[in-house]
Amino acid sequence: MKFLAISGSLRKSSLNTSLLRAAAALVPQGVSMEVRTLEGIPLLDPDTLEAGFPQAVNELAAALKAADALVLASPEFNYSVTAIMKIALDWLSIHPDAPLKGKATAMMSASPSGLGGARAQYQLRQMLIYPDAKVLGVPEVMVGSAFEKFDAQGELTDQATKDIIQKQMQALKELVNC
Amino acid sequence: MKFLAISGSLRKSSLNTSLLRAAAALVPQGVSMEVRTLEGIPLLDPDTLEAGFPQAVNELAAALKAADALVLASPEFNYSVTAIMKIALDWLSIHPDAPLKGKATAMMSASPSGLGGARAQYQLRQMLIYPDAKVLGVPEVMVGSAFEKFDAQGELTDQATKDIIQKQMQALKELVNC
Amino acid sequence: MKFLAISGSLRKSSLNTSLLRAAAALVPQGVSMEVRTLEGIPLLDPDTLEAGFPQAVNELAAALKAADALVLASPEFNYSVTAIMKIALDWLSIHPDAPLKGKATAMMSASPSGLGGARAQYQLRQMLIYPDAKVLGVPEVMVGSAFEKFDAQGELTDQATKDIIQKQMQALKELVNC
Amino acid sequence: MKFLAISGSLRKSSLNTSLLRAAAALVPQGVSMEVRTLEGIPLLDPDTLEAGFPQAVNELAAALKAADALVLASPEFNYSVTAIMKIALDWLSIHPDAPLKGKATAMMSASPSGLGGARAQYQLRQMLIYPDAKVLGVPEVMVGSAFEKFDAQGELTDQATKDIIQKQMQALKELVNC
Repeated sequence: MKFLAISGSLRKSSLNTSLLRAAAALVPQGVSMEVRTLEGIPLLDPDTLEAGFPQAVNELAAALKAADALVLASPEFNYSVTAIMKIALDWLSIHPDAPLKGKATAMMSASPSGLGGARAQYQLRQMLIYPDAKVLGVPEVMVGSAFEKFDAQGELTDQATKDIIQKQMQALKELVNC
Repeated sequence: MKFLAISGSLRKSSLNTSLLRAAAALVPQGVSMEVRTLEGIPLLDPDTLEAGFPQAVNELAAALKAADALVLASPEFNYSVTAIMKIALDWLSIHPDAPLKGKATAMMSASPSGLGGARAQYQLRQMLIYPDAKVLGVPEVMVGSAFEKFDAQGELTDQATKDIIQKQMQALKELVNC
Repeated sequence: MKFLAISGSLRKSSLNTSLLRAAAALVPQGVSMEVRTLEGIPLLDPDTLEAGFPQAVNELAAALKAADALVLASPEFNYSVTAIMKIALDWLSIHPDAPLKGKATAMMSASPSGLGGARAQYQLRQMLIYPDAKVLGVPEVMVGSAFEKFDAQGELTDQATKDIIQKQMQALKELVNC
Repeated sequence: MKFLAISGSLRKSSLNTSLLRAAAALVPQGVSMEVRTLEGIPLLDPDTLEAGFPQAVNELAAALKAADALVLASPEFNYSVTAIMKIALDWLSIHPDAPLKGKATAMMSASPSGLGGARAQYQLRQMLIYPDAKVLGVPEVMVGSAFEKFDAQGELTDQATKDIIQKQMQALKELVNC
């Protein structure tokens, strides 16, 4: 079983990309998870759609279509997801292959503040209704005070966080099978 | 008094840009409103901020700083605002001149569906809390079934919609003065 | 297969209760749907929980536990669900039998305004995350301008609305089986 | 200047009522704050409105009308406010004296979990749009891990929390004057 993880951060030393890398090591037996960032995904301008979808978008859509499940992680900017995460979702939601449709999806986030990106997650959940993703309810993964939970190399060191991620990845696997 | 209107659509014949143009003709006496679109505002990559803010962002921030009030209109993509609108808000929220802080702000939207972009507006309201914009409550302007309310040239023809816009622009003027 | 429908309206001639009654006649073959209102469900005061759950709550929880799926309909009060609907959800979420957990759940709403209760539905979706209900994504049923779609006896007369309800009930049946 | 504080908790030893009591001691010079709970506010059944508003509701509405500002605190139940808080808001929003209209309003919350009731606050903000309350943006007061910040007698002991409450009460006073 293959999970695709997409980070909404463009930062080189991103907490959220690090979080996904940590999650990739915590998936259940028999699952592998690839982590992607969104460099090269262009802005969606509806007037250019007649020319077809950009190659980078087609490639992302194909990777998602081929995956059994999706894991999203985004920094919280202004109490919502980043614009690049929204760009990706908007492209994927109108792609003719409908890669989000019915796709088992989990989300996680990390932030230096106490809330761990919670506000962005509830907006993200709303964004996934129309494309008809099959979004996991609980457990939710919101990693607050994140600088205390990752070391300087971006390794997740907090055991309680590892445990909840492991539970979420297990629940996502079960959601695929349901 | 000067209002700045920002459209979250990049489409040439955008309903939401047309809506703002209609609003510009419905502002109270003594108010003028400039309508802008967001071409040229680049993606926000935190790793590039040390090089300074892009010229297009500085220019937008200066225009907003100089305005007495802000009017936002965005198409609804996946039950939220467009990514380009989010890009603009994210830039403005971290700009050293803090042009959103305390700024009287109204929002409107139009869509072909019945809901008129309502879902995007409630997400947008949440995005404006942290930058501390002074956001107008009511009246709300959500123009559903919009293709029946604009003509082929993008002129707003529906009188009830004009009336509610006029009331909102009046309320925004009063919010500036409060 | 049995669906339980719960109305968040206490009004005798409630549009939302009428909507659920209409839905009960539009369920797929092999499904029956009981429609309940919430008279007699008392306010939840945590200090009284030691005395046990009220009989009316136990009875509601048992009915939900025995049902294969749940259908919720609520009027929109102040852009959210009614307080009586919230009371019921709060009781059900802490009931020891956990009747919401994993329960396939759909929602619908009707309102005289254009938005058809949409704002309340998105708040309701958030309320259902923690109790871990399995909430249907699309199709969504939001019946705007509802007085034009029901007759004076509370009969749903609008064919397009009947069609979308039928599709939602079919999707709910499939969600039970997944 | 008089602030009215309303707690959405019915619990005797409520963290949120304690939070409001702490806030009452942290208001700016020249301000006094009364803390109320909502015992005796009955459920809103639209069919009974012809008989007039209940006395307890009239009394609450009068107290709010006479106050210069409103402070709301609610526990988070199922990621939203409590039902009793919603009951109060629904009554106040339809009361003929319109006590919420234009009323400067701040919100705070405390919870044992890390998020401090944040999710409930964003739902509460949406509930206050239609009644046209003048809701404070920042600073936001969300007291997570609350059992570590109050002592056994319900006294707030955490200095950082006191500081942010003091800032919010000051900002609310300024909002009254604007």
